[in-house]
Amino acid sequence: MVRRASGDRKPFIEDREFMKAFGYAARSADSPLTPFALERRAPRAEDVAIDILFCGVCHSDIHTARNEWGGGTQYPCVPGHEIIGRVSAVGGDVTKFKVGDLVGVGCLVDSCRRCRSCDDGLEQYCDHGFTLTYGSEDKVGGTPHQTTLGGYSDKITVAERFVLRIPDTLDPAAAAPLLCAGITTYSPLKRWKVGPGQKVGVIGLGGLGHMGVKFAHAMGAHVVMITTSPEKGRDARKLGADEVLISKDAEAMKSAASSFDFLLNTIPVGHDTDPYMNLLKRDGTMVIVGAVEKLTNVSGVPFIIRRRSMAGSLIGGLPETQEMLDFCGAHAIVCDIETIAMEEINKAYDRTVEGDVKYRFVIDMATLGRPAAVAP
Amino acid sequence: MVRRASGDRKPFIEDREFMKAFGYAARSADSPLTPFALERRAPRAEDVAIDILFCGVCHSDIHTARNEWGGGTQYPCVPGHEIIGRVSAVGGDVTKFKVGDLVGVGCLVDSCRRCRSCDDGLEQYCDHGFTLTYGSEDKVGGTPHQTTLGGYSDKITVAERFVLRIPDTLDPAAAAPLLCAGITTYSPLKRWKVGPGQKVGVIGLGGLGHMGVKFAHAMGAHVVMITTSPEKGRDARKLGADEVLISKDAEAMKSAASSFDFLLNTIPVGHDTDPYMNLLKRDGTMVIVGAVEKLTNVSGVPFIIRRRSMAGSLIGGLPETQEMLDFCGAHAIVCDIETIAMEEINKAYDRTVEGDVKYRFVIDMATLGRPAAVAP
Repeated sequence: MVRRASGDRKPFIEDREFMKAFGYAARSADSPLTPFALERRAPRAEDVAIDILFCGVCHSDIHTARNEWGGGTQYPCVPGHEIIGRVSAVGGDVTKFKVGDLVGVGCLVDSCRRCRSCDDGLEQYCDHGFTLTYGSEDKVGGTPHQTTLGGYSDKITVAERFVLRIPDTLDPAAAAPLLCAGITTYSPLKRWKVGPGQKVGVIGLGGLGHMGVKFAHAMGAHVVMITTSPEKGRDARKLGADEVLISKDAEAMKSAASSFDFLLNTIPVGHDTDPYMNLLKRDGTMVIVGAVEKLTNVSGVPFIIRRRSMAGSLIGGLPETQEMLDFCGAHAIVCDIETIAMEEINKAYDRTVEGDVKYRFVIDMATLGRPAAVAP
Repeated sequence: MVRRASGDRKPFIEDREFMKAFGYAARSADSPLTPFALERRAPRAEDVAIDILFCGVCHSDIHTARNEWGGGTQYPCVPGHEIIGRVSAVGGDVTKFKVGDLVGVGCLVDSCRRCRSCDDGLEQYCDHGFTLTYGSEDKVGGTPHQTTLGGYSDKITVAERFVLRIPDTLDPAAAAPLLCAGITTYSPLKRWKVGPGQKVGVIGLGGLGHMGVKFAHAMGAHVVMITTSPEKGRDARKLGADEVLISKDAEAMKSAASSFDFLLNTIPVGHDTDPYMNLLKRDGTMVIVGAVEKLTNVSGVPFIIRRRSMAGSLIGGLPETQEMLDFCGAHAIVCDIETIAMEEINKAYDRTVEGDVKYRFVIDMATLGRPAAVAP
């Protein structure tokens, strides 16, 4: 059924051939994820068809599956944007990948490819709207689905530009969350030039925070884990943190005032930012990567009195994601994960919401199976 | 009574000689400013004694005189940190100034002079605490006063490092507010490299905003006045704004989304920042220079989705303040002012609070007089 692409260079040709695939989907905001038959487009000239081996479980998956982000979720919803797999077929124009390559797909599967941000390799800031790996309008088409379907499935077809090469030295399961948690923390650390001689704080120890600690440590910074929990502090030391600052300890926070060059803030909910801003040296920056809710207690004073900045950062562009993966290959960095079977996904969601995971669940797609009859 | 300094290089010698001076002071938070006899230290080796010609009226003066900033005002309080005068005497170690020079003094009269920020010429971020021109502990001493007394007076003695040269081509009265409103807006525009080809928004048209418009225009940017008031928009065009964006016009704000390289936010009170942050392009920065109150509606999303930043900035260091004054000399830039007599100060305060001034009151110190008897 897979058509090896001809030499046709039009990427978005009308194409009604597609591949049968299989996965898990949420049918509504309050239903568990259950088996789901789906379709993937047959690879076009620029496409890479991938057999999925592993898919990470990001907190965003849960928010989307449960429609906790403002009512927009289209059902059925197949989450998953931390995808590792092997190339099963390539279109005729594909030059970077061949059948059998170990590859990854992250949060994006398309963008306008012609705006300033896309030209700069910053597809995550595409002026005309990127296509998320799941839950976006599928502008390529070629399947009966209107909405992109993610990596909780056995196959996916993605344009070459949005496919990443995974270093063969990395454990493929543990590499999966690099595609979201990894790049989300790597990108701001690089952008703000974290390196030796700097004191860098990572606020919050979850999927993002644990990668922030590993990357900042590998980049040569003096890394301080900033957390409410002494236990998480101890865990962070094992990941590479040189120091722990307990944010509920007012005296310790006061002593640490104006001492940090950079803060990576991974707190995933609204929170008071003033106490953290006060930790920055003059001209220091705190980058928000987790909080999409309203921030509380943001006053001008901490910004003004030390010329401090607060910025945000969203995943990373494709070139930087490849750079991050190569950095991981060179430094033997992967995520700390707990592998689960596909059918354990709903329990894994509950545990993720409770913060009971160190630090990411990854679905082993070999467990997906294919029941005799699945819901269409 | 003025002692010409000997060759003694110890700056902070015990010295009980001082000069009689005269000014206006607030005796309490709810009393008007009234005549007040004071003392200035006789110039030490590194000091410059100045006969004050003009002093600007900054909104901070009012907050301090009326003790609106958290209970710390020491009375009697002589406000004023936009000081223009002529050198009347210099200490033996003074090399940059001579008697008769036109000079200025801004918000600072001292700092530790040995921390990293002071070494960098950024005395406004001194790690050990700067000395404000008024209302700070007077660490130099040499007078009966414990607290520094500002420019609403006929004389002041200031260490050479904290004295600025005023270009002779500038109207001295209209130059006074450059020492605070001027440098507060110039410094962030320079720091964030505002220049030709950039679209720069100035939010709010008061003492700060009107200087922001003039500077951004002189630096070659395309300047947009962002204001709630069409009338202020018209005024801003006369000052150099190329465009006006009415912030209450939801459609106009939406059309302008993601179009600004830089925003200078001069709003002096707490406010919603999300609507302004959304105006920035990817990697754009909004700098807060006015709001010392809590900011409202600050959510992570506008930061994250375009990698935008919000920063703060405080006046400027002495080298940059001199650079700003020289820039003003080269570009014939001064403030738009309304000159008042000293005895009109209380009315001027009320009008400033009502926003009824374009754009700064400046006290002509020739009107100060010296009544036969003044309160001690």
